[in-house]
Parts: sequence; C-alpha cells; structure tokens
Amino acid sequence: MKQLQEKIMQDGKVLSDEVLKVDTFLNHQIDPELMKAIGEEFAERFKDSGVTKVLTIESSGIAPAMMTGLMLAVPVIFARKRKSLTMTDNLLTASVHSYTKNETNEISVSKDFLEKGDKVLLIDDFLANGQVVLGLQDIIEQAEADLVGVGIVIEKGFQPGGTTIREKSIRVESLAIIESLQNGQVKFKEEGTAL
Amino acid sequence: MKQLQEKIMQDGKVLSDEVLKVDTFLNHQIDPELMKAIGEEFAERFKDSGVTKVLTIESSGIAPAMMTGLMLAVPVIFARKRKSLTMTDNLLTASVHSYTKNETNEISVSKDFLEKGDKVLLIDDFLANGQVVLGLQDIIEQAEADLVGVGIVIEKGFQPGGTTIREKSIRVESLAIIESLQNGQVKFKEEGTAL
Repeated sequence: MKQLQEKIMQDGKVLSDEVLKVDTFLNHQIDPELMKAIGEEFAERFKDSGVTKVLTIESSGIAPAMMTGLMLAVPVIFARKRKSLTMTDNLLTASVHSYTKNETNEISVSKDFLEKGDKVLLIDDFLANGQVVLGLQDIIEQAEADLVGVGIVIEKGFQPGGTTIREKSIRVESLAIIESLQNGQVKFKEEGTAL
Repeated sequence: MKQLQEKIMQDGKVLSDEVLKVDTFLNHQIDPELMKAIGEEFAERFKDSGVTKVLTIESSGIAPAMMTGLMLAVPVIFARKRKSLTMTDNLLTASVHSYTKNETNEISVSKDFLEKGDKVLLIDDFLANGQVVLGLQDIIEQAEADLVGVGIVIEKGFQPGGTTIREKSIRVESLAIIESLQNGQVKFKEEGTAL
C-alpha cells in the first residue's frame, strides 16, 4: 500500500535493526485519515471472504480494526490483555509470549461475542513473531469459529511470524512488508516477490 | 444522544447499582456504525472550538476518539497506561487513581505530540470519578497546551466526576448521562435538566 509505505518512510524511526518506531501515526498518535484508508484496503482485500467479525487485540490494533469493521459493516472485538472489571468468568483465553518483553500474558475474549460459524478476520498493527496471531487463532478455534484471514498493517518480513502463519495455510495480507531495517534504513519487500 | 440511549437500554447490563456493562458495543465488542455516529456528534458539538488534537486513553477511548478525530480532521493521541517498548524517556506523565480497582497507575504521553498552543479535546468512554480526565488535564498543562473540552460517551451522573470537572469551568459534553442504576434499571438524566 503505497500511501502507508510513504508514511513509514516519512515518519518512521529506525531504533535498531529490529525496531521501527511508528508512534506518530499508528501506535501512540493515530492518523485517522490513514486509518480510514487502511480500513478500506483491508475491506477490499477481504470483501469476498464473508467476514462476520473483525478481531484484534488492545491497544494498537483497535484503530485499524475499527475502520475495517466500519467498511465491512461488521462488529469489531478487541481481545483484552488484562481482565476488565466487568469481564466475568465467561471467557475464552490463550497464552501469548512476547519475545521483545520476554513475558507471557493471558489474552481473553468473552464467549458472548465469538460464535460457532463466525467468519473472523484478524487485524493487527504489527506482525513479528506471530505469537499474537497464534493466540487469537487458538481463541477462534475454541469458539468453533473460522479464521478467514489475517490483515497486518506492518509485517516485519525479517522475523518468522509471517512464514509461520502462512505455512499453516492462513491467508495473510500485509499492507507493508519490511525486508530489513539495517543501517538505519527501511527497506520494503516489493509486492509480488517472494520473501 | 437518542441512538446511544436506545443502545444502552437494549444491550447494556446493570451489574450493580454502580456498574453498567456495555461490552457489546463500546468496550470489548465495538459497534463501528455507532462509533461513527458518536464521532459525528462530538465533532458537531466541538466544531467551533478550534480543536487541533484529540486525546484519549487506551483502550476503550480509542474507538470514539478516532472517529471524532476523523470527523474533525485532526490527529488522535492515546495516553498509555503501560510504557511501550518504543517509548523512551521523552514523556509527560501523571498519576491516576482508580477507585474501582483501588490502584494508582501512571499514564503517559510522548512530548512529541502535545505542543504549546495545541487545543485539545479529551474523549473517553466513561466518566465516573473523573480521575482520568484530571490526569490527562495535568498532562495537557505540562505541555502548555489548552484543554478546550471533554467529550464523554457515558457519564455516571451519580458519581462525582462530572461535578468535579464542571466546577473547574471545563466544558463537558456527555452523550448519555445516567442518573441511576438502582433496581437493575437504567435511568437517564434528561438533556437540559440540572443534575
């Protein structure tokens, strides 16, 4: 997605060979017009998948997921990393390990919102090791719903998540795939080329 | 806002005299069309305030804040409850006490995104004791920006936050004000009547 790549080039900061900071438009400050364009793009790519629910995880996934849900006219659910006051015991849960933080967290979704037969589109801001996607997939399976695909705003193509998930025959649509962050430079994988 | 009141009556669950569960459309599952209508309503109410930034806090404030920012064509910032990997030491912080959880948390916003002279509209899902609004106001003052108003989706009119904030001459626009939750019934304050 050209508009997103340009925004990354313009505003993204390479903090190390593995870390790209995009908090000017995606995960601290949000650019609403860009989120709308991202939602339109995901909706276009998954328009024939019969999506009934968009699922994401708090917090940075919420903005792109909500715009996607708006464009597809379906509800959006965000998984919780911490239980909220009004979340009772009617939960689907999975464990997600974060390699960057070196901690394992339980994520949860109320059983009320994922049903057998739901066709679920996962949306997240980043794909790195794929642990969040695998955790959400686990929750979708517990609900006997179907995962129809994964929409990622920025995929770190030099980390294993994309390969792990595609090897499970899950459709992954990443709007920007970063091939490397070496020497402080963002290098994109061109669309249509193999990783 | 009639559409919101109807949604609360239809889908809200009164868990106690103080707790209303609205996780079918606001803070776990999100109704994107309703969020769009909420964003339009806030934008209409604050259209003459010269808003340059919308500020909220993760996670449940993000959806209504983003739709408001989209309608006003300004960036949205969400304060963090936990520091993220890429948040370095360039932060504005404030302490926020949660009476419901009986814990005090530090919230933070990067100095990069709030500037002197910014006209900031705060958006949040709930107003109860007002501690989040006061914490965000503290951060806005640290940045030497101006708080032009507060937009709340659901105000608990029987808790003191609304009074506390209005007494500081801050404009508060709540789309639904709940007068009481007694006997399992949601009772709204009618618009235009004093609390």
